[in-house]
Amino acid sequence: MRYLFIISALFSFQSGIAQNYTVYSPARKIAVSISNNQVLSYQINYKGKVVIKPSQLGFKLNKPNVILSHFDVVTVDSLVYNEAWTPVWGEVNKINNHYKEITITLADKSPHAITFKVVFRVYDEGVGFRYEFPGQVNKYLIVGDELTQFSLAGDHKTFWIPGDYDTNEYLYNTTRLSEIDAVTAANKEPDIAVKSVIGPDAIQTPVLLKTADGLYISLHEAALSNYPAMHLNLDKPTLTFQAHLVPDAVGNKAYLENPARTPWRTIIISDKATELLASKMILNLNEPTRFATTEWIKPQKFVGMWWEMHIGKATWELASGKHGANTANVKRYIDFASKHGFDGVLVEGWNVGWEDWFGNWKEDVFDFITPYPDYDLKGLTKYAKQKGVQIIMHHETSGSAFNYERWLDKAFQFMNDNNMNTVKTGYVGKIIPRGEHHDSQWMINHYQRVAEKAAEHKIMVASHESVRPTGLHRTYPNWMASEAARGSEFNNAPALGITPEHTTILPFTRLMGGPMDFTPGLFRFKLNQFEPTRTTEVRTTLAKQLALYVTIYSPLQMVADLPENYEKHTDALQFIVDVPVDWDDTKILEAEPGDYLTVARKAKNKNDWCLGAITDENSRVLNLNFDFLDAGKKYHASIYRDGEQAHWKTNPEAYVIEKKLVTKKTKIKINLAPGGGCAISIREVK
Amino acid sequence: MRYLFIISALFSFQSGIAQNYTVYSPARKIAVSISNNQVLSYQINYKGKVVIKPSQLGFKLNKPNVILSHFDVVTVDSLVYNEAWTPVWGEVNKINNHYKEITITLADKSPHAITFKVVFRVYDEGVGFRYEFPGQVNKYLIVGDELTQFSLAGDHKTFWIPGDYDTNEYLYNTTRLSEIDAVTAANKEPDIAVKSVIGPDAIQTPVLLKTADGLYISLHEAALSNYPAMHLNLDKPTLTFQAHLVPDAVGNKAYLENPARTPWRTIIISDKATELLASKMILNLNEPTRFATTEWIKPQKFVGMWWEMHIGKATWELASGKHGANTANVKRYIDFASKHGFDGVLVEGWNVGWEDWFGNWKEDVFDFITPYPDYDLKGLTKYAKQKGVQIIMHHETSGSAFNYERWLDKAFQFMNDNNMNTVKTGYVGKIIPRGEHHDSQWMINHYQRVAEKAAEHKIMVASHESVRPTGLHRTYPNWMASEAARGSEFNNAPALGITPEHTTILPFTRLMGGPMDFTPGLFRFKLNQFEPTRTTEVRTTLAKQLALYVTIYSPLQMVADLPENYEKHTDALQFIVDVPVDWDDTKILEAEPGDYLTVARKAKNKNDWCLGAITDENSRVLNLNFDFLDAGKKYHASIYRDGEQAHWKTNPEAYVIEKKLVTKKTKIKINLAPGGGCAISIREVK
Repeated sequence: MRYLFIISALFSFQSGIAQNYTVYSPARKIAVSISNNQVLSYQINYKGKVVIKPSQLGFKLNKPNVILSHFDVVTVDSLVYNEAWTPVWGEVNKINNHYKEITITLADKSPHAITFKVVFRVYDEGVGFRYEFPGQVNKYLIVGDELTQFSLAGDHKTFWIPGDYDTNEYLYNTTRLSEIDAVTAANKEPDIAVKSVIGPDAIQTPVLLKTADGLYISLHEAALSNYPAMHLNLDKPTLTFQAHLVPDAVGNKAYLENPARTPWRTIIISDKATELLASKMILNLNEPTRFATTEWIKPQKFVGMWWEMHIGKATWELASGKHGANTANVKRYIDFASKHGFDGVLVEGWNVGWEDWFGNWKEDVFDFITPYPDYDLKGLTKYAKQKGVQIIMHHETSGSAFNYERWLDKAFQFMNDNNMNTVKTGYVGKIIPRGEHHDSQWMINHYQRVAEKAAEHKIMVASHESVRPTGLHRTYPNWMASEAARGSEFNNAPALGITPEHTTILPFTRLMGGPMDFTPGLFRFKLNQFEPTRTTEVRTTLAKQLALYVTIYSPLQMVADLPENYEKHTDALQFIVDVPVDWDDTKILEAEPGDYLTVARKAKNKNDWCLGAITDENSRVLNLNFDFLDAGKKYHASIYRDGEQAHWKTNPEAYVIEKKLVTKKTKIKINLAPGGGCAISIREVK
Repeated sequence: MRYLFIISALFSFQSGIAQNYTVYSPARKIAVSISNNQVLSYQINYKGKVVIKPSQLGFKLNKPNVILSHFDVVTVDSLVYNEAWTPVWGEVNKINNHYKEITITLADKSPHAITFKVVFRVYDEGVGFRYEFPGQVNKYLIVGDELTQFSLAGDHKTFWIPGDYDTNEYLYNTTRLSEIDAVTAANKEPDIAVKSVIGPDAIQTPVLLKTADGLYISLHEAALSNYPAMHLNLDKPTLTFQAHLVPDAVGNKAYLENPARTPWRTIIISDKATELLASKMILNLNEPTRFATTEWIKPQKFVGMWWEMHIGKATWELASGKHGANTANVKRYIDFASKHGFDGVLVEGWNVGWEDWFGNWKEDVFDFITPYPDYDLKGLTKYAKQKGVQIIMHHETSGSAFNYERWLDKAFQFMNDNNMNTVKTGYVGKIIPRGEHHDSQWMINHYQRVAEKAAEHKIMVASHESVRPTGLHRTYPNWMASEAARGSEFNNAPALGITPEHTTILPFTRLMGGPMDFTPGLFRFKLNQFEPTRTTEVRTTLAKQLALYVTIYSPLQMVADLPENYEKHTDALQFIVDVPVDWDDTKILEAEPGDYLTVARKAKNKNDWCLGAITDENSRVLNLNFDFLDAGKKYHASIYRDGEQAHWKTNPEAYVIEKKLVTKKTKIKINLAPGGGCAISIREVK
């Protein structure tokens, strides 16, 4: 439902006189003021408090060579939008999209007279704005820099990772804005193979800020398409972030063909951490899907023929003599998945090329259709089918996106021909075309081409080492998840591993953009089983591993550990068997970035719930209130909690499973161990 | 036939003592001496005269980071090879490949201990050498620079064009080595749209040198594959050329996966210009074709729906309102081709995308399968078939090689489905992947991928704006010709156009590498017919245009002018109708670079000949001796010569056609006008 509204604005077109426009969010929580006084700028207030101080808008173009910073206002349009929509899959089954919008059409005062619109959508939960270039004489533009600023009102506590053109797999740093030192932080990370660090003051989005008076602010972008990813460069004296776009091989940022538009720059604001996590603004700013059909897109749980390579039991390559993806071993995984009702088995290392796949900047690495001789693909396809399990394809590109595009049609047809409907893609290594980056415009377009081509073949995608998500899963619901952050595999990284707090920060940062294929579910914590000299360990309790299936949202969830490790804890495995991957509703019960998170989710088309609670390295008492349940109904609760002596370091496998009858009125206390958690599955008593 | 021979060499493996090896060509005309004394170097003598002074060999690698300049000799091998072979098509029907070869295996003295072989093949007509990296611990190498030098023995007269990563369409400059100024020369060429000039001292190969005592020396390369093109950078104080490889987007030169090898570096030497032109050494240094069948590869003459766009009668794009490639107009060309027995009609501007195809560095320009609405492709395919003519496809990529590769399968299948077996490709504009160049390794591989993919579809290729050829048409006989130099279209370029001498230099430079799709046959000389303000003109006589079909060798020859212009001179057109495009034998009767050239060729499988003679801006008397004909046989000669008052500037259309009976004993004098020529077709009297 759209209708116009009146903006409180001084419409003045005599040049030299300031032109100011203010737009309030539907419930007037947020106000955005845009001013065309000398330069074009905007300001954001939340409940009367300044969140973003006057911050510049504009561009530096390389073609034509001009800085777009001085404008005449041509027209101003506005509307209110308020509509609900239903995602194909998700955390909730209905999303309300309610905002006020202002569109200011501007004419650049330079002789090039380039025109564009700046569009602000003002929600009660935050603000999204973007630039739109209408068709004009200058049809083709090359963006040298985007001059967008985010000028912050204080030296906030900041949860950040270093700005990097090629990786987002860093641990989060928690410092004041003024203490950001991205280069030092990046240098602490020897386990990240390919880095392109921008500089000491550059960080990545999504970034979370917490103000002294308890406001939570998330900066990111939405609908990143045909444009490079935006990182942020901090000007410390003014505490102002400047957009830093990822360059291409020759230093240009973006090639635009008008009409064109940038992604949305997003500022989500709340005085409640729980509200911030519940925001669907980034999804709302993305386009509805154009797919004709979506019933072929199905959330899944799958077993991974994967972790045993990480911990040294097996290898991806054949030559080592302990090749993991051999027929017998994969049958074992299929049997395990089938026995416990998991949908699929991801098989890595199935195809030739792993002998020298990494570090050579080699263009033709894999062909995506040739199995190793000890991998009976046809036989296993048949076997999996009999067992009611689907094999999940693995397309590691080694960063050679070009080679992947050459094979894409054949590779997806090969999947169709062999009963595979889901692929995990990987981009480990330096990108080819050489000079491009994981986050540059060309690669952004590549990921999208892969999603589109996959959709033509009715294939679902989980991408690894790809750009962090920006809500495009609304438009491409088959691009279901990505890694695009430090995932569970880093439990095995010698230097920093994964700290207990990492999973309490991810939801406030990386996950704001979309689902993460984190691959939880590790049941064995010392990782020296196959290589005694190995010192790596999983820094959680077992109960926390279960809770992650609820706190880290993804429609694709891996059951990551080895079958033999699960067989030792089949009672705990039951939670992973029971936990859904698609939801009708989600309640963020309590949350504090870096400390704790408790989430309850209602299963799709059922009256059953799951609850996950996690803490950081500190133990804590969870005061659970079941008032999210229906009144007058009884529920069986299976509670998977840390044992009394549980501790991520000394006693991670100590857990207790309790059954309880609960109702809307139930309140219980549960102790979370250091690095611990709690998972509860709740079934209505029928 | 191979046998070992003894090298006159001092085998000394005590380090510090020079190791010298000398190899003589079969008839001992040429001697190559290789020395591993401190650095690795070679020297070339011709009939006792020093042609190449001691010149260094070696590499600078970026990965591993090492300079390969100091070596231990591991082994030395040698052989003699002497075998004749028959090309699929060509200037002659038998080519003898007779050389002595020495292979020196070297071990780099650095800690990286990288080994490679340097292989010299010594012919009586010149020398080819290359580097071969065997399989070794360092499987992947990144070449930073090739240290190959060509140290010249004097300040020779040089026929050169500026070194440039993206274009080879310059006019030739004739100066002493010491007078080379490539930047000034390049700046004189406003008509070349995309330039990447290397520097004042850098030139391209093939380059021709003439020494004070009358030696002709051609420097180039053979079998350029999976490696960048080699340009030459002159060190003026020492008159030494240094190999300058074309860099990729990040400044690397070549990515090698061992075993690997470089192209051959070629030095062709003769004291007779005619002998130099007759050399087949570059072809001999290329690999025989691996194609299973070649009978589908056919030399052709074709009409071009092309020149009328250049001179402003029509346009490629539809929007202009004077779209050339419309159904009725193309029918006219088909009728013309059919009437005169030409094999094909090239149609440019047939497909959508020309409205903004150039200058935007746009990735998705053309799709290669979508005709403009006024072009009835199916109907014209049918019509052409009825008329016994084939339409020749045009794939302009706008430099977006990447986009072309995405479409390649579909585009070639589309040709198969529509009875087209020949394609003209084009690479006008800056290359995409951005940062790559027309001559960088990635593009070299691209051209080869196109040739290979075309062969899978039994398609013949003429590539424009591609790298200059290096004899690869022996290996890929379907990649029949390329432009890769300043072609006839430049007659219409306002600034420098095409000078009368240009076509007397091309055979000694660009053509040394392979056939050129020059597109001769212009019959109208002032080019202002459709745009009265146009000042461009063709700087030859009509008779010279005919002679070019013989002097510029190509198995694909365009009949370039407009049908209506030919209809005014159907008597002269008869030569173009008669001239073959495939030959059993070729005699270079007389030649001097920049001045004149006279060539006689014997038609394939016939006892008929054609003769072409051209001169530069100076008139000249041609003393023709027909002693290349068979004794005791009579021939009808149709002589197309300049009229008495003919002059390229004042009277280009003055020509005389005479019929004569000639025998082996016949001698005649013919006057060539300034910018003139003479063409003769000779038929045995049966």
